[in-house]
Amino acid sequence: MLDRETPDKSNDVPYLVDTDIHERVLYRDLVSYLDNPWRRYVTDCEWKQEKHLPYTQPAVAGVDRADARVPDGRPAGTDLDFMRAQLLDACQHQFGILTGALDPSPSSMHGWHEMAVALATAYNDWQVEHWLEQDDRLYGSVHIAAQDPQAAVREIERIGPHPKMVQVLLPMDDFLWGDPYYHPIFAAAERHNLTIAMHHNEPPVHFGRFPRYFIEWHTLIPTVHMMQVTNMVFNGVFEKFPGLKLLMIEGGFAFAPYLMRKMDQQYRDLRHEVPWIKRMPSDIVREHVRFTTQPMEEMNRQEFMHIIEQMGSDEMVCFSTDYPHWDYDSPFQALPSLEKALKQKIFSDNAKALYPKLPAHSSRYAGQS
Amino acid sequence: MLDRETPDKSNDVPYLVDTDIHERVLYRDLVSYLDNPWRRYVTDCEWKQEKHLPYTQPAVAGVDRADARVPDGRPAGTDLDFMRAQLLDACQHQFGILTGALDPSPSSMHGWHEMAVALATAYNDWQVEHWLEQDDRLYGSVHIAAQDPQAAVREIERIGPHPKMVQVLLPMDDFLWGDPYYHPIFAAAERHNLTIAMHHNEPPVHFGRFPRYFIEWHTLIPTVHMMQVTNMVFNGVFEKFPGLKLLMIEGGFAFAPYLMRKMDQQYRDLRHEVPWIKRMPSDIVREHVRFTTQPMEEMNRQEFMHIIEQMGSDEMVCFSTDYPHWDYDSPFQALPSLEKALKQKIFSDNAKALYPKLPAHSSRYAGQS
Repeated sequence: MLDRETPDKSNDVPYLVDTDIHERVLYRDLVSYLDNPWRRYVTDCEWKQEKHLPYTQPAVAGVDRADARVPDGRPAGTDLDFMRAQLLDACQHQFGILTGALDPSPSSMHGWHEMAVALATAYNDWQVEHWLEQDDRLYGSVHIAAQDPQAAVREIERIGPHPKMVQVLLPMDDFLWGDPYYHPIFAAAERHNLTIAMHHNEPPVHFGRFPRYFIEWHTLIPTVHMMQVTNMVFNGVFEKFPGLKLLMIEGGFAFAPYLMRKMDQQYRDLRHEVPWIKRMPSDIVREHVRFTTQPMEEMNRQEFMHIIEQMGSDEMVCFSTDYPHWDYDSPFQALPSLEKALKQKIFSDNAKALYPKLPAHSSRYAGQS
Repeated sequence: MLDRETPDKSNDVPYLVDTDIHERVLYRDLVSYLDNPWRRYVTDCEWKQEKHLPYTQPAVAGVDRADARVPDGRPAGTDLDFMRAQLLDACQHQFGILTGALDPSPSSMHGWHEMAVALATAYNDWQVEHWLEQDDRLYGSVHIAAQDPQAAVREIERIGPHPKMVQVLLPMDDFLWGDPYYHPIFAAAERHNLTIAMHHNEPPVHFGRFPRYFIEWHTLIPTVHMMQVTNMVFNGVFEKFPGLKLLMIEGGFAFAPYLMRKMDQQYRDLRHEVPWIKRMPSDIVREHVRFTTQPMEEMNRQEFMHIIEQMGSDEMVCFSTDYPHWDYDSPFQALPSLEKALKQKIFSDNAKALYPKLPAHSSRYAGQS
C-alpha cells in the first residue's frame, strides 16, 4: 500500500491497536503441547492440515511480505523478537491482537474432531507461553474446534479467562456460524466477555468449488463476510446473546453500508419470516459488528468519510495491518488523512471498546483537539 | 414498494423500457413444441423441472403479486391480455423485455442435456408465437441449454436472428459463466448482437447448500452477481469478445461501486496473474456491464446520485419492474425523484443502447430540459 492519493505522511498515528497480526506456529513447536496419540501424528507421520487453495498470489514470498522472513530462515511470523522490531516497535503499537496463521486451523478440519480439539488446546497453550506472556502489547485469540461445540465450550472455559485472551476465532470456512448448532460457543464467549472474531480461511467456494483464479477468490472474500453477517443477524444470534460482539477481519468495511441497507430492505419485506428479529438489521450491525480495515481499498478522505457516514457510526471500524502478509497495510499509509478524533477511534478506541480486557481508554489527543 | 422517502409522485416516466418482465409458460403449453420422446415426459409422466429452494417468501401469493393472478385462475404471467392491461398499458411501457419464469430453466438442468435442449427450443418457439409476435412492445430472451455449449450455439443461430430476440439468458445457477467452456455462447451472442443477460435462479448456495432462511437467501442474491461479474471480467470474456454486453438482472446496482473499487484494488495488486486483462476492471465493467434497478433499496435522491457518481457513469443502470413477482417495483414509485436527463437514461435510453434491435432513441424530453 505505497501509492496513495492522499497518504498520511505525518506518521501521526494515535496509540495503535492492531486488530490483525498473524503469528505463525511451526508444527514441531506444537509437539510438546500434544499428548499421544496426537503427538505421534506430527512427529512420526509428519501430518499437517491439508490446504486446498489451488493457486497462490503472484507475490515473491507467497502469502508473506518478503522482508518479514526471519533472518535465520524461519517463515514470517514465527519469531517474536523479529516481529517486535519490524512491527510493534517500528509502528509504535500500543497493542496487537494475534489471530494465528490459520494453519493449523482446528475449526476448519473436516472430520477427525479429536485431533482438531487437541490442536486447538496445543495452539492456545503455545500462544500464551510464547507470545502473550512475552510481550505486554500482545493479546490473543482462543482457537477452538467449533465443529465440536461442546469441546469448544470446554476450551473457552479453560483458556478464555486468561487475562490476555480477548476473542474466540472462527474461520470462515464452509460453516454458517449463525446456526443454532454453534450457539453454545457464543454463550461461552459472552460469559467470558470474549469477542467473536471471524477471519476467512479457504472460501469463497460459493458453488462448492473455487473460482478460477486467485484474483477472483481474493476479490470475493468479502462476499463470505456478507454471508456470515447476514446469517448471524437473521438467525437471531444477537437477540439471544445481547452482550456478544463480532469482529469481521480482513474483509475491509467498504461493503458494510451496502449490506446494511440491503438487509434493511429485505427485513422490511420479509420480517414475518424471522419474527425473533425485533430491530432493523442495520441497528443490530451497528451495535454488535465491527470491521477491520485491511485490505484497504484506495480511497480519498471524502470517499472514506462517505462510507463512515453511510454506516451511521464511526465506532465500527478498527485498524489492522494483517502483518506479515503480502498485502500488509501500513498504519502510516493505508488510510487517507482523517480528523484526529476519528483517527483516535479507528486506530485505537474502537478496538479498546471491543476488547474490555485492554487497559482503559487513553487519548493521545486529549485536550489537543 | 409503496412507502418511499421521496416517491416520484409526478408519474412522469419517460418512454419506459422495462428490462425484466417474467412471462410464464405452463408445461402443457409447451407440448406442441416438443418432439418425442421429450413430449411424452411432459404428457405421460407429468415431468417438470425440480426446484430445490427449501423455503418460500412469506407473501400471500408466493412468488407473485396477489393481484397478478389471471382472473380465470391461471398463474400470474401466463396471459398476455391481462399483462397488457395490468402492466404495459397501465405503466405506459414503450418496450418490455421478457425474461421467462425460470421454470423450466433449461440451463439449470443438471444432467439430461437433451431434454434441456428440447425445452429451450420449445420455450423459444412458444415465446415468439405467443408473446413476441403478439405485441409490438415485447422483446424476448433466447433460452438455451448452456451446459451443452454446442447445442446452445445452434439454438442462438436458429432463433437469435429473430427481430424481437434481444438477448441470451443465462441463469445464475452453480456455473461460473466466465469459464472458457462457455465462450462459444458468447461468440454466438456477439455475432448476433445479442446481450448476455443473467438472472438468479437457485443460488446463492455458497458452500454448496442454502442459507437457513429465505430472507438470507434473498439478501445474498447480489453476492452471486458479484461472483459472476468478477468471474467474467477476470476470465477475459470482454477482452475476447469486445462487442459483448452483459446485463445483470434483479440484483440491483447499489453494490456495483463497491465491487468496481474492490476489483480495481485487487487488479493493482494481482494483475500479474491475469495478464490478458489490459484495463482497470472498473473500466471494463463501465463499458460492458449493465444493471437492472429492481429490487430497489430505499434511498433518497442524494444517495441514489452518490451511487451513480461512484459508478462513474450514468449509462449503466436500466429500470426493471420484475413483474409479476411479489417484490415488483413500480416505475412511478421505486426510484427517488431524479433529473429529467437521468430519468431518460435509466427508464429508457440505457436499455435502448443495450439492445440495438429496439427502435432508435427518442427522447420524451427533447428540447425541454
